[in-house]
Formats: sequence, C-alpha cells, structure tokens
Amino acid sequence: MKQFIELDFDFVTGVSPDALEAEAVQARDLLENRNGPGNDFLGWLDLPLQIDNAQLDELRQAADTIRRSEGLVIVGIGGSYLGARAVLEALRSPFSGAQFPIYYAGHQLDAEYHAALLEFLKVRRYAVNVISKSGTTTEPGLAFRFLWRDLNDRFSADDIKKMVFATTDAQKGSLRKLADEAGLKTFVIPDDVGGRFSVFTPVGLLPIAAGGLNVASFVEGAHDMRAYLKSDAGRAFAENPALQYAAYRNACYQNGKKIEIFAAYQSALLYVAEWWKQLYGESEGKNGKGIFPASVNLSTDLHSLGQWMQDGERTIFETVIDVARQKGPVIQQQENNADGLNYLAGKTLHEVNRTALQATLAAHRDGGVPCLQIRMGDLNEYSLGALLYMFEYACGVSAYMLGVNPFDQPGVEAYKQNMFRLLGKP
Amino acid sequence: MKQFIELDFDFVTGVSPDALEAEAVQARDLLENRNGPGNDFLGWLDLPLQIDNAQLDELRQAADTIRRSEGLVIVGIGGSYLGARAVLEALRSPFSGAQFPIYYAGHQLDAEYHAALLEFLKVRRYAVNVISKSGTTTEPGLAFRFLWRDLNDRFSADDIKKMVFATTDAQKGSLRKLADEAGLKTFVIPDDVGGRFSVFTPVGLLPIAAGGLNVASFVEGAHDMRAYLKSDAGRAFAENPALQYAAYRNACYQNGKKIEIFAAYQSALLYVAEWWKQLYGESEGKNGKGIFPASVNLSTDLHSLGQWMQDGERTIFETVIDVARQKGPVIQQQENNADGLNYLAGKTLHEVNRTALQATLAAHRDGGVPCLQIRMGDLNEYSLGALLYMFEYACGVSAYMLGVNPFDQPGVEAYKQNMFRLLGKP
Repeated sequence: MKQFIELDFDFVTGVSPDALEAEAVQARDLLENRNGPGNDFLGWLDLPLQIDNAQLDELRQAADTIRRSEGLVIVGIGGSYLGARAVLEALRSPFSGAQFPIYYAGHQLDAEYHAALLEFLKVRRYAVNVISKSGTTTEPGLAFRFLWRDLNDRFSADDIKKMVFATTDAQKGSLRKLADEAGLKTFVIPDDVGGRFSVFTPVGLLPIAAGGLNVASFVEGAHDMRAYLKSDAGRAFAENPALQYAAYRNACYQNGKKIEIFAAYQSALLYVAEWWKQLYGESEGKNGKGIFPASVNLSTDLHSLGQWMQDGERTIFETVIDVARQKGPVIQQQENNADGLNYLAGKTLHEVNRTALQATLAAHRDGGVPCLQIRMGDLNEYSLGALLYMFEYACGVSAYMLGVNPFDQPGVEAYKQNMFRLLGKP
Repeated sequence: MKQFIELDFDFVTGVSPDALEAEAVQARDLLENRNGPGNDFLGWLDLPLQIDNAQLDELRQAADTIRRSEGLVIVGIGGSYLGARAVLEALRSPFSGAQFPIYYAGHQLDAEYHAALLEFLKVRRYAVNVISKSGTTTEPGLAFRFLWRDLNDRFSADDIKKMVFATTDAQKGSLRKLADEAGLKTFVIPDDVGGRFSVFTPVGLLPIAAGGLNVASFVEGAHDMRAYLKSDAGRAFAENPALQYAAYRNACYQNGKKIEIFAAYQSALLYVAEWWKQLYGESEGKNGKGIFPASVNLSTDLHSLGQWMQDGERTIFETVIDVARQKGPVIQQQENNADGLNYLAGKTLHEVNRTALQATLAAHRDGGVPCLQIRMGDLNEYSLGALLYMFEYACGVSAYMLGVNPFDQPGVEAYKQNMFRLLGKP
C-alpha cells in the first residue's frame, strides 16, 4: 500500500488492532458478500471501477458550461454537499481571486447568511447545482426556491437551461419533475448509494469538476484503492489499510477510548474532517453505541484543545493525517535574530509543520493517547480519491464490527417529524 | 437577566443544576475573593469596568489608520486571535466584497496556506496586527518574519509605522524590542490576563475595531454583564446565568455526561464555538479531568452528527444558542408548489430556523440528552460582549467546582518541548 496511503502504528500504545483481525475479516466478508444489514445500499462499493470515460466527459462538459458563469452555487445538505466541499476546499486556494467562485446554500437555515448570499448574487450571472434525491428536503428546498425565483425573474427559460443543473433521482420526486419540465440538464443519484457514500457519484463529481479540479484523477485514486482492496495482496489483513483502521478504532473503543479525534495539520483538510465526521457519526452512532467523532486543526488547536488532549480524561484516541510533500516558503536568516528563530533558517515551513506533528504524536502518546498516522505522499485529486474511498470501505467494516447497520440513519428523522408538526406541514 | 442573556432549562432532563448551588456559590466566592489557584491571572475579572473612553479612542484611532490600507493581517495563535475572530466572523458578512478585508496568519504552520497568502499580499498595501506576549512563539513568529521581510522590501520605515501594530508585553520580549526600535504603535497585553481571557484587552479589541465593528458597544455588553453579576440581584444563584451554567455542566459531568456539544443555528457563530472550546478545554482539561468540548453547526450537522446525537452513546449534553431576531428572506408562494413547501409561505427563513431549533431540542431531550438553551435577543456587539464575558466568568467558576486551576495550561508545553528538541533549538 506504499503507493497510496500508509498506516503507521508507531505511536499507538495500549491497544492492538491485530487482536481484532478475525472480527475485521468477518465484517469485511459481510460487506463484500453483500449479506450484512443495509445491503441494498452497497452501490458505492464497486462504483469507482464502473465510471467510464463517457460519464467523465458528460460531467466535464457540464462543468465547462458552469464555468462560463460568474460562479457556482451548490445547493445541498449533509451527504449531498460535504464530499464535494471536502475535495474543493482541500485543493483550491483559501483565497478567492483568480479562481472560479463557489458558494454554498441550503446546507442550513441561517437567515442572515442566505440574505447576504442572495443580495450578493442578484447582480451576477451564476450557475446552480441543486442536489437532492427528493427535492423536498426543507433546507435545500427553501434555498433553491429563493434562487429559482431570482433566476426566473432575470433570465429566459433558455438561459436557465445553461445555468441550472439538477442532481436527483432518475425517475421520482419533485426536483426530477421540475428539471424535466424546465428542460434542465440532470445527473442521477443512484438508488443504492446513500448520501454519505455518494462522493464518487455525480453528487460529488459535478461540483468537483466545476471547481476546476481533475475529476478523472480523483476517480482513478478511488479506483486504484478499490482494486487494491479486492486484490490478493490487499485482502490480507496486514496489508489492508481499511481493515487495519477499522480494527484499530474498534480496539480503542473496546478499551474505553470513546472519542476519536481526527487531526490535520493543513487547514485545507477542515472539510475532509467534516466529511469524515458525517461518515462515521451517521453510520455508527445508533443503538446507544458508537465512537464520538471529533476533529482538530493543528497546530492551531494545540493552543486550544491541546491542553485537554494532553491532560484531560483519558478517553480519546487520535487519527492524524500526515502529508509528506507541500509547497511553501523557506525560512530565511534575519540579521539581528530578534525573534530567536534563526535556528530554523533554511528549513521550509512545511518541515517545521511536520516536526510539530511528530512532536505532538510523541507528547500525546506519552500522555496516554493512542495515535495512528495516516500518511499521504501528496495532497491531490488522486490521493484524496484513494483516501476517501478507503474511509468509506473502513466505515462499512467498522460498523459491522460494532454490530450496527452502517447504511441507515433512523435518528435523523426525529427532529424532522417534530419540525413538520410544529410548522404545520400538511 | 432578561435584558442580556437568558438561560432556559425547559429541555434539561435527568440532571438538576440546583443540586450544586452550594458548590457553585463556593467556587464563585473563591473567584471573587481572589484566593483560588491561579489568582495572579484575574486581571480579566473587572476589566470591562475599567476600560475608559481614552482607551477606546486610542483603539479607534489605530483602527482608522489600519482601515486606510487594503486589508489587515492578524498574526496570532490560540487566545491571541480566537476572541477577535469569533466576534469578527459573527458580525461581518460571510461574503467578502464591500467590507474591509481581514486575513489570518501564524495561527498554524500550513505551508501552502501561507504561500498562497504571501503571494496574494505581495502586490497589496496591507496592515498587520501582530499579537504575541513574547514574540518568540513559533507559529506567529514565523508568519510575522515572512510579512516583516515583505513589507521592509517594499515600503519605507516611515510607511511601516502606519502599517504594523504590535500587541505585546509592556516591557519585555523580542516583539516589544522590535516594535520600539522600529517606532511602531503598540498596545499592551496585561501580565495578569491569560490568552483565552484576553478578548476585552487590545488583543481582541484592536482587530474588532479594525474590522469596522462597534468596540464601545462590545465593551458595554461585558461591562453590564460584569456589573450585573456583582450586583445584589445578580449574585443570587437563581438569577445568575454564569453560576447556573457552571452548575448545570458540572451536574451533567457528575452524571456521566462527558461531552458538551455547543450548538449554534447561525453559521456566523462557528468561531464563537471555537473560542468557547479553547476557553473550556484549556481551562478544565487537566489532571485526567474535564468535559470534552465539541461543537456543531445546525441544522447542517443534523444531517451529519445528528444521528449520533440522537441515538449514539448517552454521554453527551447540549448547550444551544438561540438568537430571537435575525434579518432574512420571507418564503413566498410558488405557483405549482412542486417542492411541497408552500405550507411555509409567509414565514421568514429565520422562523423556520428557530422551529428547527425547537424541534431538535424536543427530539434530543426525548433521546436522553439534557439541552440547555442560552437565549439572546439580537446578535450584535453588545450581546456578544455580554455572552463572552458570561462564558469567561462561568468558566472560572466551573473549573473551581471541578477542582482544577482554570488559569494555567501545563499540557500545552509538552509538544513544544518535543518540537524544540527535534528542531534543534539552541
């Protein structure tokens, strides 16, 4: 697995993933043989092997049309937007400017946020990718209603066909109906892929392509990871990063480590952490069980949650993303060395950042926190494709090890039912 | 307390803050009588009563100078920047455009982030507020080194006096020395105020003023909260939101609720949550104790961590910020009601958002999660000043109830010592 993603257990103490090899292999077989709970939602499993050039061309063509506008508004919530956002924020500049602008709407109900966005957009010719299986989910539904009205007030039906793209059900639902009536270009959310496993469907791929990223390379990373995990070499527990990761986190959980902290040393990985939290939280948090998924952005949070992580309740374990190569400035000699930092001259900022990572691993291990490193060579479309697929696969295995259905989310309905009642939904 | 911040315990079940009244009052007396651990760091306690017009004028004058540049770079980490960022992100537009640009540097070591920022800045005339007690902290020290070199390459020493503002120690340290030698305008970090309690010192106030916000109103909110908590009426446990909050969270913790989830329904409050996590995590996470502080942004995370919160391990309690009034769009009737959302026509988006909040509270309470509501009338400088001061005060009380020193952070040194050794610091 050297070529994609490497797991390093050097700083894992007190627990052994190897002790759970049998359970991990059994859970993997349940997943691969498609006879576990939720097995009608396994469309994601071989998806990266099935995406062909025609599909990629269709996505890139739509993306080219989108990029002729003044920006893209992605309308979606939860699994309908987190995967795309994770990749877009990881690989595009944090500073808007030369790059094609991307905005998010309908991922929440914040009134002042949406007011500011609508005000900002109303003088612009923007594109919309509305992503919803049904079209009736409250948050994206309302946001799309505002945008649809604005566009219809200002543009012709013909113009709108080049501006609005719907990712929705193949047949059913209100968004499918609206899109067909308005003659919009549509992409399909497969029936057998749940939201949090949908980043390799058009749900994730169209916004990623529209953001100017190499969607073929992203799919290739997932493809190669999937092919590896199926291969004779990759099926072996010792060589399988997904099984190792699933076994590690279950071993921690069984040892009273109830909180997993996903730690990244690149602020660009903030939304990869959010995507990961949804994937694991929604797949495992049921029946009174499940690791609580939390995240930190380091080194900034070493000056925040770092104290708790070092000395607080010993109920946590850590999963750290280490990126080997990053571009960035070289530290130069300063004449009077006023700040005392000349001892770093000649190093790159990234070398200092990786040293902070190593230093923190040692400190946390000594403080009683098991720390797994997930090593990536570069942070790019290919490596993120491999990483995200690996996390999806490991999540299926891990939830089966825990004894829950990874592919349902019954608890999400509870607030919706209350809300519909309070709002007087017919 | 109706006029500032109101606590609502209607959805708190299974625990009673009243049971801990005696402990809370005792801890408050320890704080107010200044005879608890860490009592040489209580400069923040009466600070909002001491800020006068001359100090505010000095801050506003510097802010005016800063605002004549093309943007402000805030250089600081942890408590040196989180308070200002919390207020700036809560009250400024999420979309850059008409407003004065603000950037952050030195809050982490991400090489590509800093490379992109330096590239972006090198053709601009920007201002810098460098915030560091010592001037030698690695993260802000390195960022300031890059910026200082860029500015000195492009501008005269006289120009730089109008561009760089240092917030640092009154006497000591390398940043004080550099600032005095270069003739920079400086502001002082008091010796008796720790970083995470520093938002009402120039550490927080200068960037907030430079962002175009009403710093007098922010201070007034804190002033009124401080005066209230000292008053005869406010000293009573039943009328004191800080004591109530401290008692509530300790009651939860003693009942096995080990994770506190700070929930906001405005994405603008994201960095208020980050500030809160630092405040409580760093003050309480020591000696193997402390509630783990986590945060969610709702309703987006109802489609993510919501499942775990509803049905996962019953080890959490929730603290929700409810903002009564927000501007925003009204939902309009749609001709064919394709999305089925016409039943919401005539309501504002904010009404739907608040209904989602109420619906979620009921769902979580029914799922076994105690949920405290902290109600604010408006989200503005005044209410944030009151809220942030209330949280600081409650944190001191809460940590004393837990039996730890709220004002030290011995664990933060662990990674630094390792890092200095690995980097070969002389």
